Amino acid sequence: MRNKLCAAALLASVFPFAAQAQDPVGDVAWDILAGLTSEVGPRMPGSEAEARARTWADARLKALGFSNVTTEPFPIRGYVRGRDEASLIAPIPYKLAVTALGYSGTTPDKGIDGEVVYFSTLDALKAAPTGSLVGKIAFIDHAMKRAQDGSGYGPYGQVRRAGPAIASAKGAIGVVIRSIGTDSHRNPHTGGTTFADGVKPIPAGAVSNPDADLIARIARSGKPMRLSLVLTGKTTDNLPSGNVFADLPGRDPSLPAILVGCHLDSWDLGTGAIDDAAGCAIITAAALKAQEGGKALRTIRVLWAGSEELGGFGGKAFAAKHAEPYALAMESDFGAAKVWRVGFSFADANKPLADRIAAALSPMGIVRGSGKANGGTDVEPMIEKQKLAVVDLDQDGTHYFDLHHTPDDTLDKVDPAELAQNVAAWTQVLKIVANEAAPILPAP
Amino acid sequence: MRNKLCAAALLASVFPFAAQAQDPVGDVAWDILAGLTSEVGPRMPGSEAEARARTWADARLKALGFSNVTTEPFPIRGYVRGRDEASLIAPIPYKLAVTALGYSGTTPDKGIDGEVVYFSTLDALKAAPTGSLVGKIAFIDHAMKRAQDGSGYGPYGQVRRAGPAIASAKGAIGVVIRSIGTDSHRNPHTGGTTFADGVKPIPAGAVSNPDADLIARIARSGKPMRLSLVLTGKTTDNLPSGNVFADLPGRDPSLPAILVGCHLDSWDLGTGAIDDAAGCAIITAAALKAQEGGKALRTIRVLWAGSEELGGFGGKAFAAKHAEPYALAMESDFGAAKVWRVGFSFADANKPLADRIAAALSPMGIVRGSGKANGGTDVEPMIEKQKLAVVDLDQDGTHYFDLHHTPDDTLDKVDPAELAQNVAAWTQVLKIVANEAAPILPAP
Repeated sequence: MRNKLCAAALLASVFPFAAQAQDPVGDVAWDILAGLTSEVGPRMPGSEAEARARTWADARLKALGFSNVTTEPFPIRGYVRGRDEASLIAPIPYKLAVTALGYSGTTPDKGIDGEVVYFSTLDALKAAPTGSLVGKIAFIDHAMKRAQDGSGYGPYGQVRRAGPAIASAKGAIGVVIRSIGTDSHRNPHTGGTTFADGVKPIPAGAVSNPDADLIARIARSGKPMRLSLVLTGKTTDNLPSGNVFADLPGRDPSLPAILVGCHLDSWDLGTGAIDDAAGCAIITAAALKAQEGGKALRTIRVLWAGSEELGGFGGKAFAAKHAEPYALAMESDFGAAKVWRVGFSFADANKPLADRIAAALSPMGIVRGSGKANGGTDVEPMIEKQKLAVVDLDQDGTHYFDLHHTPDDTLDKVDPAELAQNVAAWTQVLKIVANEAAPILPAP
Repeated sequence: MRNKLCAAALLASVFPFAAQAQDPVGDVAWDILAGLTSEVGPRMPGSEAEARARTWADARLKALGFSNVTTEPFPIRGYVRGRDEASLIAPIPYKLAVTALGYSGTTPDKGIDGEVVYFSTLDALKAAPTGSLVGKIAFIDHAMKRAQDGSGYGPYGQVRRAGPAIASAKGAIGVVIRSIGTDSHRNPHTGGTTFADGVKPIPAGAVSNPDADLIARIARSGKPMRLSLVLTGKTTDNLPSGNVFADLPGRDPSLPAILVGCHLDSWDLGTGAIDDAAGCAIITAAALKAQEGGKALRTIRVLWAGSEELGGFGGKAFAAKHAEPYALAMESDFGAAKVWRVGFSFADANKPLADRIAAALSPMGIVRGSGKANGGTDVEPMIEKQKLAVVDLDQDGTHYFDLHHTPDDTLDKVDPAELAQNVAAWTQVLKIVANEAAPILPAP
């Protein structure tokens, strides 16, 4: 048994932002969330700040009693943000709220300017004739709507992921998109884009939704529109990143472990509260709570992955490096709103296990989904490699894309009660799966 | 009778952003709001943009059939925004969402930096010993709460209006305040501050509420905090501003007129939709609608005042210049949310008139307040000068200070149905007061 007085003193020194804890384990989630956002701040992949986050994570996980706390470095191709500015020049001068996309091309310090060609959808851009954008700046609009399951991000996210390369291939000197988001604030949504080999990276930014509304109104008026763009950030190779993982050893080390993931890095515009300090807070607090009645049968390993935002590098590096066997993987990386649905990727033989989990969650109002669980970016490479079973605890995403990748992703956006509901749901699941003696196998 | 076909053609050419109008007068409000925000944009007092707004106003008011459309120039002491940047340097590097306050002192291009001294209230700052802030940057926090009547703005607004001068007098090299606002977005709230003669203007900025939350958390942790500040804007004398006014002549020009005001200028961070394009939209559309059954008895004069935001210069200039008699004044300058209350400053003899107005508004759910109406900044100087009666139509201010003076004050924030309710309420009042033959006199 741990010396409780000592542990309390250690906690107080390591957790200057801790809430007044009634239950030491009860505040673990909030304290990780408040600590990462307030003591580390934004944690851009490959940055000095992400390195400080690893140091912070190492100290925190040790202070919380985890074993085998390990940092594993890896290099990444990163993006180092520069100065981000955009203004309408015509028909009226207007300073836009803009952010560079990750891996954007770089403008000269004085920027570029050009005529704006408006596309209401990505398909409209695709239909533009080759060469029709030479010397021009493409603006790509879209109509993403909010959804409980966040399902708009797949299709509409293509505007960000693929749009800039398509505009480049048609000769554009720059591209600006409507932010992939569902809010109406003057905060742009960043995120990575992709230029395949052979496609020239052009300066690529996203403007806030109210700014995109204005651009759309001007486009409808038929007035010629010009825009200036300053995006001086640079894609940079061999930046240092890394994963941090830690264990709560099980009673039977011979059984394959349970892997639970989140990511430690964040975009730099906010402090990465919902994306994804909350995820690390949830999985870590739940792993600890799952031991409250005593050690679980199987080891639970928490993975705080690095550099998720620019290409899921942490999850890939972890899978490449590790050969020890896992049974099941889970991830929390969709904010801190309430869990509303559970999903599984289980073999038929594990249907009773799934039924037990669903029954344990049902009193919390969590419904059972019909789709196949897939984990998430940080654990998917290991799920693929080892063919792991998966449980998904789906959070309500109705407001997730109001904040996602914006300056507004800050601590005040997390409701402590919703965070606690996540921890409670995760604890239920981890208690069951980490104490399952029979093999846990994935859906075929 | 106006030639309706000609008027429609004229409207279409002047109003490229017009909604598809079922009722030409019915969309006047939305079209003014959309036009000012989309065709002119931000309208900083004394700027080139404010001059464009006057030209726009002149054309629009003429196109709408107003008479005697007049622009009256006046010079102001203005504030020309420069580069606004602030970052925490310690305990963590963090880029803050900041705006300079109007009349802020100016930093060198490379900025200033200093230790932050945290004050939880304006009173705490006042209590700091003289000289205790020498070489330091004061941070002033506060606890403004949202209120239907916006009553928090009076007391908490003093943090912005008076705080910087108090910090300067105690030796501070700069001052940063928590934005005077009720939202939780990374958008700072600007607004004017005041340095009396003999007090050195120091650089003065406001950070967003989430940033202020972080600063408060760091202050509670006891960690030393340093901040860098770049605010290169300049207070500038003799900038050109002006008022635009226009009349709907009454059947009896010998009767004192009804004066209805709003302001044409706006802060520059957003497009001044709720502050105060909406006000100009409401009063102008209502004045026109009040004539739908035929000319009113009294002339209605609409005043689109200039440079309200930096000192109410437009209202003062109008009162100083004009000696023609008015009977009653009203103003709309509190957003576009629903009117919920009516207030009066009427002589006892006009109690029946007040009762008729209150009875006309009651079916709209508008209650009668017990306080004395006071108009607003753009009409108060004339109210004082001529001792005018006043009707206040109070809008719901619950969310007004979420947007007030922020980048978020944009067209999408206005609900067309709420705007229409304002026009309807104003129309009711104007129909009654502009057709009142008896003298209309103020409360003693």
